[in-house]
Amino acid sequence: MPDILKKLAELIGFLPGIGEKTAVKLAFFLLKSHPSYLKKLSETLAELQDTVHECATCGSLTDKQHVECEICRNPLRKTEVLCVVEDYLDLVSIERLGVHHGRYHVLGWVISPISGTSPSDLHLKQLFQRIESEEIDELILALNPNIEGEATALYIDEYNPKKGLKISRLSKGLPNAGFIEYADEITLLSAFRGRK
Amino acid sequence: MPDILKKLAELIGFLPGIGEKTAVKLAFFLLKSHPSYLKKLSETLAELQDTVHECATCGSLTDKQHVECEICRNPLRKTEVLCVVEDYLDLVSIERLGVHHGRYHVLGWVISPISGTSPSDLHLKQLFQRIESEEIDELILALNPNIEGEATALYIDEYNPKKGLKISRLSKGLPNAGFIEYADEITLLSAFRGRK
Repeated sequence: MPDILKKLAELIGFLPGIGEKTAVKLAFFLLKSHPSYLKKLSETLAELQDTVHECATCGSLTDKQHVECEICRNPLRKTEVLCVVEDYLDLVSIERLGVHHGRYHVLGWVISPISGTSPSDLHLKQLFQRIESEEIDELILALNPNIEGEATALYIDEYNPKKGLKISRLSKGLPNAGFIEYADEITLLSAFRGRK
Repeated sequence: MPDILKKLAELIGFLPGIGEKTAVKLAFFLLKSHPSYLKKLSETLAELQDTVHECATCGSLTDKQHVECEICRNPLRKTEVLCVVEDYLDLVSIERLGVHHGRYHVLGWVISPISGTSPSDLHLKQLFQRIESEEIDELILALNPNIEGEATALYIDEYNPKKGLKISRLSKGLPNAGFIEYADEITLLSAFRGRK
């Protein structure tokens, strides 16, 4: 294989979820693609990290020319309900639903003794500052339903500076179109207990 | 989402086998990746098409500084056995096996009336010239086992300039670890007739 194609396949192979064979396939596709597409892709990648930065308020992402992200800048978004997520992709998933009209706070990480992430690594200080300074009535903890998510939720519940603040979590249960016989015990128990 | 992230996700979404969600995930991963990785990827993409071109003999790929590819330049590769493939990725798959010690000829396309590919679009003229000028004893037609592959194989068999040339095709049968009950009729019939 020509050196550059090998190198490109290797670089593409570092991307999550892309195996060696797919990487070669994609490298070949890129080689055969329209030059203008390739140019755009190359330029976009070169500019990417210099064009985007974290929102000063919520830790989400925004264009370099703005200090705050689009959601924090939007006066129509409610300040009373704050949705706490682990990372930006979780925010994107929830935004797609169109059901949350409040704002967000992106933690960046979750507490995980195994991978060595302690509470001080998360954007918790900023979160607690917001709880104190903003008019927040409800905190929705939209964290993944696993041990790290639970630990982080417990920590926030314990240390949030406004006692009596309403804190909710996403419900656990059967995924849509899932099967009871394939559900693990914790999921099924949650679904059973959370029946409506 | 910041404009550049949206744009990048859109560009990545054009790649084969990558859906909208995966594209966003990859764009986000790239944003968070090491700057030197991103720089390398961007530069490699920018150089790609100017660095690689088709081998003048077999239609495979080679670095710009060489007229012929590595295989055609290798004096240890046999000239008697020529393996004909549709595209470069098929060549890569066969090379990985290490069983073919001859050379290759890459057609670029296969005959397909539906997608409007006629014999003149394929590198057939060069193939027939090679059959006439090189010392070729056997032609292995390693084409996909579908209608287009069959049509192309029949065309080569019919119009090859050296009558009596040994032409072979890859065998059809059950894929390894496949199931008889799930095999389609043509595959099972091929496996049955080709029993050894």
